[in-house]
Order: sequence, then structure tokens, then C-alpha cells
Amino acid sequence: MPLCSTSFGGMKRTLFVPALGLFAFLCLFSSESVQAGKVLVMPVDGSHWLSMKILVEEMSSRGHEMVVLVPETSILIGKSGNFTTKSFRVPYSFDELNAHVDHIRKTAIEKAPRFIDIVGALGNLIQFTNMQVKACEGLLYDEPLMKSLRDMKFDALLTDPFLPCGSVIADYFSIPAVYFLRGIPCRLDEAAAQCPSPPSFIPRFFTGYTDKMTFPQRMINTFMTVFEKYLCHQLFASFDELATRYLKKDTSYAELLGHGAVWLLRYDFSFEYPKPQMPNMVQIGGINCAKRAPLTKELEEFVNGSGEHGFVVFTLGSMVSQLPEAKAREFFEAFRQIPQRVLWRYTGPVPENAPKNVKLMKWLPQNDLLGHPKVRAFVTHGGSHGIYEGICNGVPMVMLPLFGDQGDNAQRLVSRGVAESLTIYDVTSEKLLVALKKVINDKSYKEKMMKLSAIHRDRPIEPLDLAVFWTEFVMRHKGAEHLRPAAHDLNWIQYHSLDVIGFLLLILLTVIFVTVKSCMFCFRKCFKKSQKKKKA
Amino acid sequence: MPLCSTSFGGMKRTLFVPALGLFAFLCLFSSESVQAGKVLVMPVDGSHWLSMKILVEEMSSRGHEMVVLVPETSILIGKSGNFTTKSFRVPYSFDELNAHVDHIRKTAIEKAPRFIDIVGALGNLIQFTNMQVKACEGLLYDEPLMKSLRDMKFDALLTDPFLPCGSVIADYFSIPAVYFLRGIPCRLDEAAAQCPSPPSFIPRFFTGYTDKMTFPQRMINTFMTVFEKYLCHQLFASFDELATRYLKKDTSYAELLGHGAVWLLRYDFSFEYPKPQMPNMVQIGGINCAKRAPLTKELEEFVNGSGEHGFVVFTLGSMVSQLPEAKAREFFEAFRQIPQRVLWRYTGPVPENAPKNVKLMKWLPQNDLLGHPKVRAFVTHGGSHGIYEGICNGVPMVMLPLFGDQGDNAQRLVSRGVAESLTIYDVTSEKLLVALKKVINDKSYKEKMMKLSAIHRDRPIEPLDLAVFWTEFVMRHKGAEHLRPAAHDLNWIQYHSLDVIGFLLLILLTVIFVTVKSCMFCFRKCFKKSQKKKKA
Repeated sequence: MPLCSTSFGGMKRTLFVPALGLFAFLCLFSSESVQAGKVLVMPVDGSHWLSMKILVEEMSSRGHEMVVLVPETSILIGKSGNFTTKSFRVPYSFDELNAHVDHIRKTAIEKAPRFIDIVGALGNLIQFTNMQVKACEGLLYDEPLMKSLRDMKFDALLTDPFLPCGSVIADYFSIPAVYFLRGIPCRLDEAAAQCPSPPSFIPRFFTGYTDKMTFPQRMINTFMTVFEKYLCHQLFASFDELATRYLKKDTSYAELLGHGAVWLLRYDFSFEYPKPQMPNMVQIGGINCAKRAPLTKELEEFVNGSGEHGFVVFTLGSMVSQLPEAKAREFFEAFRQIPQRVLWRYTGPVPENAPKNVKLMKWLPQNDLLGHPKVRAFVTHGGSHGIYEGICNGVPMVMLPLFGDQGDNAQRLVSRGVAESLTIYDVTSEKLLVALKKVINDKSYKEKMMKLSAIHRDRPIEPLDLAVFWTEFVMRHKGAEHLRPAAHDLNWIQYHSLDVIGFLLLILLTVIFVTVKSCMFCFRKCFKKSQKKKKA
Repeated sequence: MPLCSTSFGGMKRTLFVPALGLFAFLCLFSSESVQAGKVLVMPVDGSHWLSMKILVEEMSSRGHEMVVLVPETSILIGKSGNFTTKSFRVPYSFDELNAHVDHIRKTAIEKAPRFIDIVGALGNLIQFTNMQVKACEGLLYDEPLMKSLRDMKFDALLTDPFLPCGSVIADYFSIPAVYFLRGIPCRLDEAAAQCPSPPSFIPRFFTGYTDKMTFPQRMINTFMTVFEKYLCHQLFASFDELATRYLKKDTSYAELLGHGAVWLLRYDFSFEYPKPQMPNMVQIGGINCAKRAPLTKELEEFVNGSGEHGFVVFTLGSMVSQLPEAKAREFFEAFRQIPQRVLWRYTGPVPENAPKNVKLMKWLPQNDLLGHPKVRAFVTHGGSHGIYEGICNGVPMVMLPLFGDQGDNAQRLVSRGVAESLTIYDVTSEKLLVALKKVINDKSYKEKMMKLSAIHRDRPIEPLDLAVFWTEFVMRHKGAEHLRPAAHDLNWIQYHSLDVIGFLLLILLTVIFVTVKSCMFCFRKCFKKSQKKKKA
């Protein structure tokens, strides 16, 4: 058996290297002759960009020309040496954008969650997305820029479909689109991909249910499924309008999305509940936790100084590095009472008597810290990036969901027994202390998390490689038409066979009607005869 | 960047080798510390075994102890140096089995297809499976053998769920099961795996429809979906009875199947129509066409002697190597009239004036021949193995489906424009000639087939590696519980939310009733008052 060889016939070959002692290892040589291509990237700013950037940089290092479209008010995208950026004007200032984001942050931290939260969150989201739609318009109607982009003859477009610009451009340029996402509010992604999603065992967002629901829960979940339709309509009305106006055809955002070639989904079933998938859905959950670097000398000394008790990592994501003073005090008080040291990404005001076991940082190397053997717990807002870094490294969590999918993310980990969840609007040092002590001292949290981590990491191919493969596949084959279900050609009634059922019911009713009428006719005839005979 | 390295932390690492000229290649080193384990294998005899054998031998070569259960009347399983076999007694002779198979063969070749064929095929299938169930009983009630197997403490069971024995043993030994299959009649596999399968765009077996159906076709397809339930009941009644009796609990074959850890499915979407999949479904279509060997000197001379015209490969699968004399004559006559040479797996009577361009063989190296650059067409019965060897090698086909899934397989390739299909019961040399000339001379067949082949072969990991990975995954984690959807805990009514819909309708009707009654009450009150006033 050859050790490793490669073929140049445009075909991948896999060769096995014989087991050496206990370690059997597998070597996959891909020699698909990938010609360097051009990919247009339309990202979503903020934390969404952080994992997409990994794919963009990897594609770039593989020789592809990656052109990233960046709004001039960009928060996190910025410039990089590894890919080209093209800046475009937006009709609002950086301060206006920040004010919007601040409002969302404030609402999340200071208001009670539950149903009222959905309505509030929805309002905020609509405001935010409308702002983004305006930015998108700025780009689309910038004719010189659009012309220069079209002239570049891209092979594919990579976008986060949380915002509509990418899909509109893909359709306008007639190039295949690769989607990169955790999910779209109101499950527009599943609807657009024609993915079945029975409400009987797939909990809807914002419900806080698991995949095992009671009858009342299933009822509310079904109601939420209907409510989602309304939500979708409200949320994506401006997307639909823009697409129809710009592409000069009667279309909707869902229809545009349905033409996407491949969906790269930032989850897997160590985190999400098992559910049906479509052929063009590829799971790349954990794509963000591959790279780990050693800690700086200062950090290494700090965490090692924690002795046997270890340390806790605390961040509320890339968007939230401050807290109202009273709220922050609760955290400081809780941390004062634990033997662990704490690393906290915090830029807010610090009380004078701040406990000495807490180190505040403007930014912290989250994944590197979570990979340290002395880490004991991760206090997080429950963004999908942080969650996967926690799962990869097997660290139990205390979760403080703020907005978006974070509440549901938290619930998924709590139901698996690897995390505790608190609501940030009414968090106290006592509650925090109880939760922290639980996840640190109750061994079941760590044990379950290690099992989850083992399952997550045990995969035939790494998420980043999978994302690269499918993006290149779409470039090579100009889409992935063979993965597109014929369901796209059916309307809602046809998809659910309601026209067939209706027609069959009509036939059945006709047959019953004719039979009953005939029987009655015969019966009457006979009855009359017998009456006549009787009379006779 | 390191060229290739491996880690021993139980984690896979993927490292990229920088692109060399145009050829970027990827190297995946899997160093998951796989301890050699024990797998019990319960195969299905005949062609089903041919691809499962590939996985069994690969697992064996990776150090696992593979114990294959072989009925003493085995046709194809036999003994091998690469894995252990355990023979078990069956309550019928080799001749009786052969007579059964012969009857199925005869019916397929000599009777007209269509609906009447389903009923006939169903009868034959029930007779055949009942025979196999008896064989299974022989094994299950062989207490010394079963005890010795149980004592071996297997890590997993690998089985083809076309027959029930494997699932029953897995449940009895409480070990996780890995299924290896193309499909189960009446889609019991999809039902057992809780996989949605809307009849509006997923054609049912035996219908001959594509995924794009007209209204009448969708109506018949819906009818077939209901008919399948009856079919399943008829077909698997003896399976249900055996499982309930042997396991001493109220169960069914579908329920047992539902406990399978992973479904290794011998198809992909270069062949099947795109449809929903469940998380524990893994596609390994084309697993059988990895290995190709050079032709013998004699064969190489024969095929090279065909000059520019090339040659045609003709087999009707592992089970059919003979034809009635009159039928065979039609084939000889057709082959006489083409400029290609023909290699035919045929052991029947040969007419005196057999054409010289035809070489008859007892057995032929199908995949090696289909990989030869001079091959022009593949005449096949449309078994899934042959089909994938045709797709892998990009060879257009003339299909003569005999039984089982073959008719539908043929239809899938015809709808993709890469094959012509004929019915064997009324085949003539003229029809054959037309079909052969079409697929050989009309370039569109070859072009479309090359595209299909490119899509099929362009995959991030080879099917055999994927099958090995998931079998070992199940061994490592004692199942794949995280991929099991909660739908398994729901009954049919709950799954489809019919109880919720019913309850909501009841509430709605009650509200309407109360509202109408109240309105009528008020109306009457008002009306009476006004009447009184009028009277007054």
C-alpha cells in the first residue's frame, strides 16, 4: 500500500497509511486542480464577520482573489493584507450607527426578557436592518463601483444572508452564491432552502423550549411557527422591496435566497437539536476555534498564579465591553467571593475596591484562554462563536444572553447539562455566585462538557476545510444545481399536496353523495312498492 | 507553514500545503486514536454483499476484528482471509434457495412490467424474505452460537437492514447498529429514520416519475405513498412477528430500525433526486468503484483490437448470467450490427453463428473495463453498483431493469440524459440497436455523463473513508445519540401536530359558536324590544 501519493486527473484520492501501533491515521490528498478564482464577499459587520474572515483568509491563502465589500462605517471588518477590500458609502455616520447599536445593547441589558422582549427586539432589528438596507442601496446604486465589480467577472459570491445585499448582487451579476450563517431570524433560511421543519420537535426561536415539548409547549411552538410568517413579513419587507425595485422583476428575498448554491451553517448537532437538513446545507460549526496561540507572558503568569483553583473567563462578546455601574458592581462582588482568578473583557468604570483576583482587559484572547488547562468556567453572553470556543475546549459556562439567538443558544447548552443561564437584567452577585460555584464544583458539568466536546471534535473533516471545499466546488461547477430540490418549483399548496388531497376528497365526497342518493332512490322505490303491496 | 504533521491529543488536525503552481492540494491527517475494536457483521447475500465487503475488508485492514455471519447456503459471501466468518444453519437447501431466485429471475425477464409487476414482485419478495426470516430464526435460536457471539462483546453491529436479523441481534446484545444500504422497499428506512419525504417532489418507487411531476402524477405518487403503508405491512409482517417474539417485547421492525445509530446510504445526489436527509444519514454512493486494476493481457488485446470504435460492456448483474435462447439471439443480432466490440458476461447457450465482435465471459472485471479509455457504452440491468461504476467512469448506459429498484434507477439516469432504458421482456435487436447507436453516437449522452461523473467524484472525502469514519465513530461513542431526532418520541398524530391543530380548531369553533350565540341572543333581545315598541 503506498504511503501517500497524488493524482493529477482532477480527482481526489484517499490512501490509508497502515496503523502504527495504536494510532491509525488517515491521509487525504486532494489534488483537484483548483484554478485560482475570484470571489466577491459581502459580509455583515460585527461578530458575524469574525468567522467569515477565517474562510476569506483561507481562500485567499489558497490563491483566490477575495474582494470584500466594506461599508465606510465598518466596525470590525477593516482592512487586511490578505484580501482586497472595496469601501462603499453609506447614508449614515459612524455615530448614528453606534447610537443604534447602543440602543440595542441598552434594551438587552436593562429590560426584562420574554414575549415583550421579542416585540422590542423586533422593533430594534427592523430599525437596524432598514439602516443596513439603505447602506445596501448606496452600494447598488453606485454605478461606477458596480460596473467595476461586474467587470471583474467573479466566479462566486460569498455572503452572510442576514442582510440582503449579497443575494441581490449575486442575482444581478448572475453568479452563484455561497451563504455563510448561523441562521436568519424567523427561519427564513430554512423556508428558502425548502428544508422541512416540523414544529412538533423543532423548537422555534425565542420560545426557550428543547426538542422534547409538552402538549402546551407544542401548541405555543405551533403558534410561533405561524407568528414567524408575520415576523418574516415585517422584517424583510424592505428587503423584498429593494430586490424587486433593483432587479426589476417580481421577486422576494426568500426567492432570491432559494437560488443560493450552498448554505454553510455555523452549527452542528453537538449544539443544535437534530433536525432535517437539505442536500446543499453544510455544517461548519466550530470553524472559529481551530487556531490557538500561546498566551502572552503576562497572561500566562496571571492564570498560572491562580494555583489549583484555576481561572474564569468573562466576556459579553465583541459588541458589549461595558455595563452600567450598578450591574458591574454585582459582578465584581461575585468574583470577590470565588477562589478563582477572573479575566474580564471590560472597559467600563472600575470601583475603587475592585477585587484583586479580577484582571480587566480591553480585549482578551478568548480561544487561547479557553484552551488553557487551568480554565474552570466561561461566563458568556451566548453568542455562537463563544459557545463553540467553549465546546471545542470543553469549558462549562455561565450564560447571560443579551439578544438575537443568544437566549436559545443558552437554553441548548443548559438542556445538555453543561451550562447555567441567568438573565442579565436582574442578575445579582448571589445568583452569579450560585451559578459559578455550580458549574465549577459540580463535576457533572465538566464531565458532560468533555463528552460534548469529544463528539464535536470527532469529525471526518475540519469545518474550515469543508467550507473551503464547498466554496471551491461552487466555483468549479458554477453552482451546485444537482443539490437543488424540485420543491423550489412548487407553491405552498402543491408542496403540501393540498391540491391532491382536496381533489381526492372531492372525488370521495362525490362517490359518497352518488352512492347515498342511489341507495335512497332504491330504498324509496322498494319502500313504495312494499307500501303499495301492504295497501293492496 | 508545516508540510504535514500529526497530533496525538485525540483530535484531528488539518494543515494546508501551499499551492504548487496550479495544483493546490490539501492534506488531512487524522490521528484520532482508534483502538482496534470488534464488529459483528450481518450481511445480505447476493449483490448487496459486494459493496459491504469493501467496508468490512477496510475495517479489517485497520485492525478491527470483523466477524461476518454467513448462512450455510451463501451464494456470494463465502470465506475470506481478511475477516472471520461464522456459519449458521438455515432450514432450506441451496437448491431450494436457487429455485426461489430462479423464479424471481424468470418473472423479471419474461413478464411485462408496470403495476401488475409490482404485485408479482411483491409476492416474490414476500416469499423470499419469509425464507430469509426463517434463516434468521435458525441463527437466533442457535443458543450456543448466540452465546459465543454475546461473549465476544462487540462494539457495534454492521448490517444491511434489507433483512431483519441484524437489528434484532443489535437490540438483543444492546450494541449500536450501523446500517449499510441502498434503500428498503416501501421506504421503511426513511420512515424509521424519521426523514420527511413529501410526495409532491419525491417520486415513489415503481412509479417511474422524476422529481418534477404533473398534477395527475403527483396524485398517483400520493396514492403510492398510502399504498406503501399497506406494502410495508405485508412485507414486514414476519419481521415484526419475529422481533416481538424473540425480544419478548411489543415492538416492530420499523421501531427497531429507528434505534440504528448511523445509516450509510449507497447513493448521492449525482444519482438520486435532491431530498431532505436526517443528521445520521451518510451518503456513500460510489463506495464500490474506488479500486481499479489493469486488464489481463488477453482482455487488453481484445478491447484494443476494437480500434477507434471502442467497445461495449454488457452484464445483467451478479445474479443473471443467462437468458432464454430467443432473447439471447436478439442481443447477438444487435451486437452483430455495431462496429464496436462487445464484452458480455454470459453463460447461456451460444448460437453457432455468434458474431465475432462479441466475447463471452463467465465473469468480467466490470469496473476495470468501464475505466478503460476505449469503452463506449455500458449495457446493464441498472443495479446500483453497476450504475455507480458507470457514473464514476463516465460511461453512457443502455439499461434493462429487471427487478427491485432497478426500474427507478434506470429512470433516474434516463431523466439526466445519460442513458436509454428498454424493457427486457419485449426487447428486440432493433430496439437494442437504436438505443446503442444513440448513446454511442449522440455526443450529448457522453458529455452529460462526463459532467455527472465530475460532480460525483468532486467530494471532500471518499465514500469508503466516510463509511469507515462513521463506523468507528459509533464504536468510539457507543452510538450516535446526539444525531437522534426527538421525533422518535412522537406518534404520527403528534409528529404532524394534528392534536395541536385539532385542539386549536376546537377552540376556534367554540369561540365562533359562543360569539354567534351571543350575537343572536343580543339580536333577539333588541329585535323583541323594537317589536314591542312598534306594537306599543
